[in-house]
Amino acid sequence: MKIDGLMHSSVPRNHFASDNNSPAHPAVIEAIISANKGHALGYGDDYYTQRACEKIRQIFGKKCEPFFLFTGTGANVLSISALTRPYNAVICAESAHLNTAECGALEKFAGVKLYTIPTETGKITTADIEKFLIYNHNQHHSQPKVVSLTQATDFGLCYSLDEVRLICDYAHSRQLYVHMDGARLYNACAALEVPLREMTVEAGLDSLSLGGTKNGLLGAEAVLFFREELAGEFKYIRKQGMQLASKMRFLAVQMEALLTDDLWLTNARHANHMAALLRDKLAEIPNLKLTREVQTNMIYCIIPPESIDIIRQSYLFYVFDEIRSEVRLVTSYDTTEEDVLGLAREAKRAMADSGQE
Amino acid sequence: MKIDGLMHSSVPRNHFASDNNSPAHPAVIEAIISANKGHALGYGDDYYTQRACEKIRQIFGKKCEPFFLFTGTGANVLSISALTRPYNAVICAESAHLNTAECGALEKFAGVKLYTIPTETGKITTADIEKFLIYNHNQHHSQPKVVSLTQATDFGLCYSLDEVRLICDYAHSRQLYVHMDGARLYNACAALEVPLREMTVEAGLDSLSLGGTKNGLLGAEAVLFFREELAGEFKYIRKQGMQLASKMRFLAVQMEALLTDDLWLTNARHANHMAALLRDKLAEIPNLKLTREVQTNMIYCIIPPESIDIIRQSYLFYVFDEIRSEVRLVTSYDTTEEDVLGLAREAKRAMADSGQE
Amino acid sequence: MKIDGLMHSSVPRNHFASDNNSPAHPAVIEAIISANKGHALGYGDDYYTQRACEKIRQIFGKKCEPFFLFTGTGANVLSISALTRPYNAVICAESAHLNTAECGALEKFAGVKLYTIPTETGKITTADIEKFLIYNHNQHHSQPKVVSLTQATDFGLCYSLDEVRLICDYAHSRQLYVHMDGARLYNACAALEVPLREMTVEAGLDSLSLGGTKNGLLGAEAVLFFREELAGEFKYIRKQGMQLASKMRFLAVQMEALLTDDLWLTNARHANHMAALLRDKLAEIPNLKLTREVQTNMIYCIIPPESIDIIRQSYLFYVFDEIRSEVRLVTSYDTTEEDVLGLAREAKRAMADSGQE
Amino acid sequence: MKIDGLMHSSVPRNHFASDNNSPAHPAVIEAIISANKGHALGYGDDYYTQRACEKIRQIFGKKCEPFFLFTGTGANVLSISALTRPYNAVICAESAHLNTAECGALEKFAGVKLYTIPTETGKITTADIEKFLIYNHNQHHSQPKVVSLTQATDFGLCYSLDEVRLICDYAHSRQLYVHMDGARLYNACAALEVPLREMTVEAGLDSLSLGGTKNGLLGAEAVLFFREELAGEFKYIRKQGMQLASKMRFLAVQMEALLTDDLWLTNARHANHMAALLRDKLAEIPNLKLTREVQTNMIYCIIPPESIDIIRQSYLFYVFDEIRSEVRLVTSYDTTEEDVLGLAREAKRAMADSGQE
Repeated sequence: MKIDGLMHSSVPRNHFASDNNSPAHPAVIEAIISANKGHALGYGDDYYTQRACEKIRQIFGKKCEPFFLFTGTGANVLSISALTRPYNAVICAESAHLNTAECGALEKFAGVKLYTIPTETGKITTADIEKFLIYNHNQHHSQPKVVSLTQATDFGLCYSLDEVRLICDYAHSRQLYVHMDGARLYNACAALEVPLREMTVEAGLDSLSLGGTKNGLLGAEAVLFFREELAGEFKYIRKQGMQLASKMRFLAVQMEALLTDDLWLTNARHANHMAALLRDKLAEIPNLKLTREVQTNMIYCIIPPESIDIIRQSYLFYVFDEIRSEVRLVTSYDTTEEDVLGLAREAKRAMADSGQE
Repeated sequence: MKIDGLMHSSVPRNHFASDNNSPAHPAVIEAIISANKGHALGYGDDYYTQRACEKIRQIFGKKCEPFFLFTGTGANVLSISALTRPYNAVICAESAHLNTAECGALEKFAGVKLYTIPTETGKITTADIEKFLIYNHNQHHSQPKVVSLTQATDFGLCYSLDEVRLICDYAHSRQLYVHMDGARLYNACAALEVPLREMTVEAGLDSLSLGGTKNGLLGAEAVLFFREELAGEFKYIRKQGMQLASKMRFLAVQMEALLTDDLWLTNARHANHMAALLRDKLAEIPNLKLTREVQTNMIYCIIPPESIDIIRQSYLFYVFDEIRSEVRLVTSYDTTEEDVLGLAREAKRAMADSGQE
Repeated sequence: MKIDGLMHSSVPRNHFASDNNSPAHPAVIEAIISANKGHALGYGDDYYTQRACEKIRQIFGKKCEPFFLFTGTGANVLSISALTRPYNAVICAESAHLNTAECGALEKFAGVKLYTIPTETGKITTADIEKFLIYNHNQHHSQPKVVSLTQATDFGLCYSLDEVRLICDYAHSRQLYVHMDGARLYNACAALEVPLREMTVEAGLDSLSLGGTKNGLLGAEAVLFFREELAGEFKYIRKQGMQLASKMRFLAVQMEALLTDDLWLTNARHANHMAALLRDKLAEIPNLKLTREVQTNMIYCIIPPESIDIIRQSYLFYVFDEIRSEVRLVTSYDTTEEDVLGLAREAKRAMADSGQE
Repeated sequence: MKIDGLMHSSVPRNHFASDNNSPAHPAVIEAIISANKGHALGYGDDYYTQRACEKIRQIFGKKCEPFFLFTGTGANVLSISALTRPYNAVICAESAHLNTAECGALEKFAGVKLYTIPTETGKITTADIEKFLIYNHNQHHSQPKVVSLTQATDFGLCYSLDEVRLICDYAHSRQLYVHMDGARLYNACAALEVPLREMTVEAGLDSLSLGGTKNGLLGAEAVLFFREELAGEFKYIRKQGMQLASKMRFLAVQMEALLTDDLWLTNARHANHMAALLRDKLAEIPNLKLTREVQTNMIYCIIPPESIDIIRQSYLFYVFDEIRSEVRLVTSYDTTEEDVLGLAREAKRAMADSGQE
């Protein structure tokens, strides 16, 4: 994806480039300030981290083992490392962030191979998974071991609760683990109105990359294991994986703030609503073609290159597919109605101009 | 190192366990708040990151290529990865953090071997390095490629400017790069009254892990390359190494704050002074034996186990060598005279009690 | 691929399962015996290895740097390791042995990602390659660095000399190296009547996995670099890659024997001729459908499962695609006309039987 | 170790450089020839490999799981990979081949760290091992998991049967596995007159790198696991580790030949006897100082540099320690009394000449 000829100026402005372009939510800053007092033991042996772990267990259940770390890539790569040996393979959608946008981190660190499935939606099925089981027990082939689901997918679409359950049941019956990349899990749960616990541990997941940074944090993610035996040695993987924070409390309190008073839900719901509003406004523009269903906070549509250039003078966003001129618009917890209406107005104007040519 | 039977309570208290137990400096929190406005492109393509890079170049010179990341382990491992191929070896002191406290991260990620040198001080010499050059060109042995210096060392001691220069000259004449682990570079430069630039790029270093978290940041480190060609592809290494922050601005402004108005120097100088004061106070205690010279913010001394238990009821610190009962006391930018005098008082009392037995 | 219910008996019999099922050519055994005299320095510093390297340079040119090793997987993985850093990607056909049948060895050892291209033939084009260049300079994506061609492909088809040249020119103009997996290079050169040197170094290749075991050796492969600077540190990669033979002479003389008096050509030509004969005989069988062009020593055809079971009572071979019931038949340097006619006869009989059902 | 200015000529001559400089034993060549008939399935699914596995199980016990591969480095690295995760550490003598002469292969492939122990003899003790257990459960340190013993050690010395048993018992009580590098296990068992089974599986080992190439094979090694659960997934590790032979039968029959009619014992005993004879002869030379006990087929002694140059005009060997001018002399299964007496004579003459100066 590409943003050309655009350098961020010093004047703050809202983007539709990514939900990680947004600032931290004020409650998150407050949480950091309130934890910024006196000394605390490093590396997680502190009061704040314990408190945040308690909060996570309240939400995801007592058997959940949480670990805080810095990046979504770190969460994906290290949690899958815990589930695999290098001769294993991970089955995922071709569009999965794991495959497309982590610079080969999983291959490098875990040593595993990715078996990828082309999809329109980012969602895979048990039939997709089954095709790779032919490799089982054959020494020439990386052995399938983990199914990784992205919820919501990189196209903003959601697995239903039943779909997640079905895949977990299927996978477990084939001796496969199920990992979820939940960088935007909040948006999916908000959209489907399903509680976090139901969508994850109760649906049968073995491990979860729990997002944060894309939903209002300064920068914090978590890995959750839902089977104690998988978590046993993860602390070494996290340290060897360079993701162990010395001042852990500052990661912990961010996540705690997000999970307090349903801030995660308020934030995600708002982003989803703004996306729905934007979709509705864009749908009214002649010739602008929406290319994918909008379920969460992402909109994909085709806008001619010359119109893109015009709109981008006011609003940043990425071109997803240059050949089709398909762009991706992402809303965030802090996207305003004014932003949405402004973008729609610009798009309408740009398309009209270009239509007249 | 071990802290037994101690769980951090909710009451904030100052430790002598590590400089990473301290909170963030208020100026750092302010910098974060001031950058927490509006959207900014992710992954470093933003105004704040550019500004912070400029600040670093003002201090370390125009040819310096800075990269922000999360942890000191990440900075060490990834910067050395950029200088090596897996069949290379890194020459360092046996006591180097790289060797002792990073859970094998360098071996895992860079694939290299460590050639380590036992020392009393943490400082290595050209004669130490030379011993490993016998392996050059022999296919059975990992090929020496990088010398890694820790400044200040893990025992709190400093290479003089001349020593750094000498090692750099020697190394370069043998086709070796020189990396510096500068987790506590600030303390060394404050102690020696040498500017950062002189101690690093001008002394001949090829790359630097520039600390931050141990000197008042919330959590941010940097890798600096002093030759453009070494930096060329580091962005991929950082991403594949899971250390690329999406909200990069919040790492950048921390480091900028530390380098503004010599905050780094004020902080490091204070920590060093507190250590000197503590050393002087401890030196007055009969039977308490200081084991190493105190040049920066670390004090090593022998305290009998039963006295350790008593002192720890008030102040946290680590036992470095259980067999000798040698403890490590670390001061920080926020250590107060009261903390120092209080610890010295407790130590005196505890030693007296134990002396009477 | 699968062979069911068949265990090799002690009675030797010729297979169509793979050219690596064949024994060593008598000239190869003789070469080993003639080198099995007295002591020789280990690891390649011996007379025999020097002589074999000379032979290779006679054939592939003076600038060629040859290294002997044990397996084709080793040759592929290690030669590509020499051309890449872990954040790089290798572009190859989806069907490439590198991707399908090496248990993730390249990902594990080189740390790189594979960008794969679905093809019917195993042959890729410059247009295929170009699609991945969109990732250039984008830190989120593994950076394309090597194009790997398989000659002959895993479907037995050949790149023409012009096609190889074109890809090399294109790749070099895009700062990509070209590697060739030449496990069956001999069969391709025999089929196209192109000398080895013309098809490799003169066509522009940067490195070559030169096969041997599939064309009559006991077990020996080689990696050739055609640019000195690429070969410079390969000896360390080979050792660290566990492919350095102590008794190197016994690998070297095998390869020398194959390259002496055009044994490679005689062997490959014979295998190709036997495949052509088999193709002609199978083409006469009603209902037996040849699925791919036969250019070298591999035949793909569809045979109903029940007929497969019958034929396999006499001749071993693999089912390539169980769903289509497509089988792969491979001829070897020692396949006899009697073998071919026998298999064709069995196939005809089995198909007739099954046709009558 | 270094051999200067010596290039092997085409005239075969016996060395004292290494037991891997010797040719293959005639019985091994015969075994290969007898297996070189007709086709055999690749990758180990053949009659010869089954037969060789049976032979190994006869000797090492029914529960033993054998795997053939190419090199001792491969056997060490891959067998230890099966016992570890990358955050583990392997405890071994500093002099272990694993540490000194495998170009960092273990660190690269298994990702683990080596905790090494300086010794005079190459033999480690339970007290040595215990020192590293302080790292247990501490996330900053690679976690001890495997003890690797070299039998005979790289100085030619042997662990007694009781010593091996003691270490195995100790290790198991601390949740550590025990691996043995048995590149010269045959020489140790011959010297101690202990059967192979007693020294390995019955003493409590978990896995063994079983040598071959140094005791008369053309080139073949094996990995043996003595607990079924450890072997379960080793076939994938071997393939991903590039050590899976397609024509496996030719590795298998070599090992089978060595284990038939006690050829291993005859060979090793002979090499040991030649070493004892050489030791006795050298001991008679004034000023020539034997530096280590001779238990198997290696002799270490100090010879002045100028004498080394003279002797090397007739016999090849390595200088082990250039500073002390300590050389290593290795006898082999094919070393003759004439070789030994000739070398002793040359040494005597050279030392006398040099003594007269």
